[in-house]
Amino acid sequence: MRGFRDRVSAERALAWLDAELDKLGPLPSESVPLGEAAGRVLAEDVASQVNVPNFNRAMMDGFGVRAEDIRGATAEKPVALKILGECLPGQTFAGTISAGQAVRIMTGAPLPPGVDAVLPVEKTSPGGSQIRALCELKPGKNFGTVAEDIRAGEVVLQVGRVLRPQDLGVLSSVGQGTVSVLRRPRVRVVVTGDELLPSGSVPAGCQIVDANGPMLSALVQRDAGLANHPGIVPDDRAAILAALQDEAEVVLVSGGSSVGQEDHAPTLLAEHGKLAIHGIAMRPAGPLGMGRLEHRLVFLLPGNPVACLWGYDLFAGRAIRRLAGGTADWPYRQTSAVLMCDLVSPQGRLDYVRVHQRDGQIKPVSMSGASVLSSTTRADGFVVVPSESCGFAAGAEVELFLYDR
Amino acid sequence: MRGFRDRVSAERALAWLDAELDKLGPLPSESVPLGEAAGRVLAEDVASQVNVPNFNRAMMDGFGVRAEDIRGATAEKPVALKILGECLPGQTFAGTISAGQAVRIMTGAPLPPGVDAVLPVEKTSPGGSQIRALCELKPGKNFGTVAEDIRAGEVVLQVGRVLRPQDLGVLSSVGQGTVSVLRRPRVRVVVTGDELLPSGSVPAGCQIVDANGPMLSALVQRDAGLANHPGIVPDDRAAILAALQDEAEVVLVSGGSSVGQEDHAPTLLAEHGKLAIHGIAMRPAGPLGMGRLEHRLVFLLPGNPVACLWGYDLFAGRAIRRLAGGTADWPYRQTSAVLMCDLVSPQGRLDYVRVHQRDGQIKPVSMSGASVLSSTTRADGFVVVPSESCGFAAGAEVELFLYDR
Repeated sequence: MRGFRDRVSAERALAWLDAELDKLGPLPSESVPLGEAAGRVLAEDVASQVNVPNFNRAMMDGFGVRAEDIRGATAEKPVALKILGECLPGQTFAGTISAGQAVRIMTGAPLPPGVDAVLPVEKTSPGGSQIRALCELKPGKNFGTVAEDIRAGEVVLQVGRVLRPQDLGVLSSVGQGTVSVLRRPRVRVVVTGDELLPSGSVPAGCQIVDANGPMLSALVQRDAGLANHPGIVPDDRAAILAALQDEAEVVLVSGGSSVGQEDHAPTLLAEHGKLAIHGIAMRPAGPLGMGRLEHRLVFLLPGNPVACLWGYDLFAGRAIRRLAGGTADWPYRQTSAVLMCDLVSPQGRLDYVRVHQRDGQIKPVSMSGASVLSSTTRADGFVVVPSESCGFAAGAEVELFLYDR
Repeated sequence: MRGFRDRVSAERALAWLDAELDKLGPLPSESVPLGEAAGRVLAEDVASQVNVPNFNRAMMDGFGVRAEDIRGATAEKPVALKILGECLPGQTFAGTISAGQAVRIMTGAPLPPGVDAVLPVEKTSPGGSQIRALCELKPGKNFGTVAEDIRAGEVVLQVGRVLRPQDLGVLSSVGQGTVSVLRRPRVRVVVTGDELLPSGSVPAGCQIVDANGPMLSALVQRDAGLANHPGIVPDDRAAILAALQDEAEVVLVSGGSSVGQEDHAPTLLAEHGKLAIHGIAMRPAGPLGMGRLEHRLVFLLPGNPVACLWGYDLFAGRAIRRLAGGTADWPYRQTSAVLMCDLVSPQGRLDYVRVHQRDGQIKPVSMSGASVLSSTTRADGFVVVPSESCGFAAGAEVELFLYDR
């Protein structure tokens, strides 16, 4: 057993991680059906091959007319037009409208040749096979023109776009049934600890039930990764090495991250890959490690669940979000709040403080050890005290991140 | 063909909808595995049956000692203790620590009887079968006590909670492998229109490709509903009625919502159920309808895709979110921005204005007809002009909703 000789600052650890992510870049693309594309990140610009619409279309129910025919029409001096037929959406009208003629037309129907305006039904009075126009119209009135929505050749959505519901509508309009998006990072969750019972067990004796597996899997899912957590891995070098070498872009190890005799993951990573960071000047999650194993980014997270959550949020989540093509930013809603008491933190250490919020005022939760996961479910959010700060005085306005995701 | 005789205000339509939702309440509960519970809404309070932990546990790697044995110990005057054995996580130590004895102990391991403090490894110096304590400790130091996280009988999470990743960790800790959450509303998406090609087709001639189906399905998914969109429904009374009667809590009809001859859904709803609202003083989506068909809430959305999106967001999404146990609020991030030009809207009409944003300044997108869906993909967000307002003057600060979800 030995302590950490020295610890790097959280800021330096983040700089290492960002540099690795810059080297890796986002993942390659894959094609997915539109029905699965919401929230995914576009892998390339999408240009339309077609005009949308590809025809002039009525914008309301009414009558297709020639504007010149009804010039000067009023309710007192209506102009009668002969109804030649009916235009329905999706159907081509077989004929041309000549002087003194009109067609009944429905919203969305293509305008037949000759028609240059759509007279709303409210501006007409019926008359058997005739219709009386009660007002005049300018040519071009009440219909949409070819390509009013999208012009052929136009880029409709750009690479990097996080696809919104309406984007899927536009992609569908231009004829795309699938879309090329960035692949989501595969994330192997490796929970170690011989004292752990698998999730779903009732805790008994001196055993506890794995909290980190379900928590990490949900965090990975939130950050657009594909979590794979096949179960507890024994505290055994061969088993841990096999898990580290899983088919994944990111490996999260929970437990055994420190420098104790049963902490196998750091030595395995150092032997088979690169243990770039081990021991960070922060609380909780000080014993955290990061490195590479071939193409994989490996995060050695402490087994204490609060430390595991914070280590994930500060480092691993950032990596997963960036690999998925998103931003490094936390998904938490950010606001500012006033401290109700002093928050003291030694200079040189980054602190993660769970807080209660009420009416824009915050105070730390009382039970807040790294092993007390309920401190993060009782809290409304957290405050970060950066390394260079000695903390904040009561009454200070600080940034609050709300646990809302 | 006839126009709407009169239109209710959007506010009155919302009041009708909220009253219906109050009558319906949230959906019944279902049990789901923890792995699928993130983001779901808890259907009942969860009380723990157990203490977490159920034993006193070491908070660091070191030595379990009796505090009285090392009273007065310093680096200059260390106190030697005999190492009796080792305590590992998950294992019960077979023995009791007596005067002058210590045990090697790892983080998370249960404290054996007799031990009342954990001496960090850094505060010791080794000595074969002995260890030398370099400082004294108060009893109770460096270990967590029974139930420090959760006490048996305590309510750990309350009904209505939207489950966070760490909540799943806490639920797992207390022995829950499944959790009772509100069922998600089933939403049948009924896209009508004989002119429509199914999503995945290339538009040709006077046909257009369905944009609303993929868009509505993604919106429903965003709002925690279960969308079912089996394909385009023909403009046919029997087919539309069958779709309205689908097994679902919410039915969204896109297209044929107005008062034209091919607008079957409103008359079908009036005949077989209740068409409570039809025609709303708003733009776009004025021809929108709402009603009930037995237990189902039915929304008749315009086929024009911008109107469809807005009608969904203003009414249907609200219903789906509330049925799922969430809030009526939009999921969009809200901010304030300064108008770069006047925004005029007739009093008595609610307007939905898509805007570009730059440096906190906004202006409406230029092409903004209800059929121009790309106006909602080009825009950064939207501004709502309420019914009672005649609009806003250039320079006014208005609420902006960002299209970020």
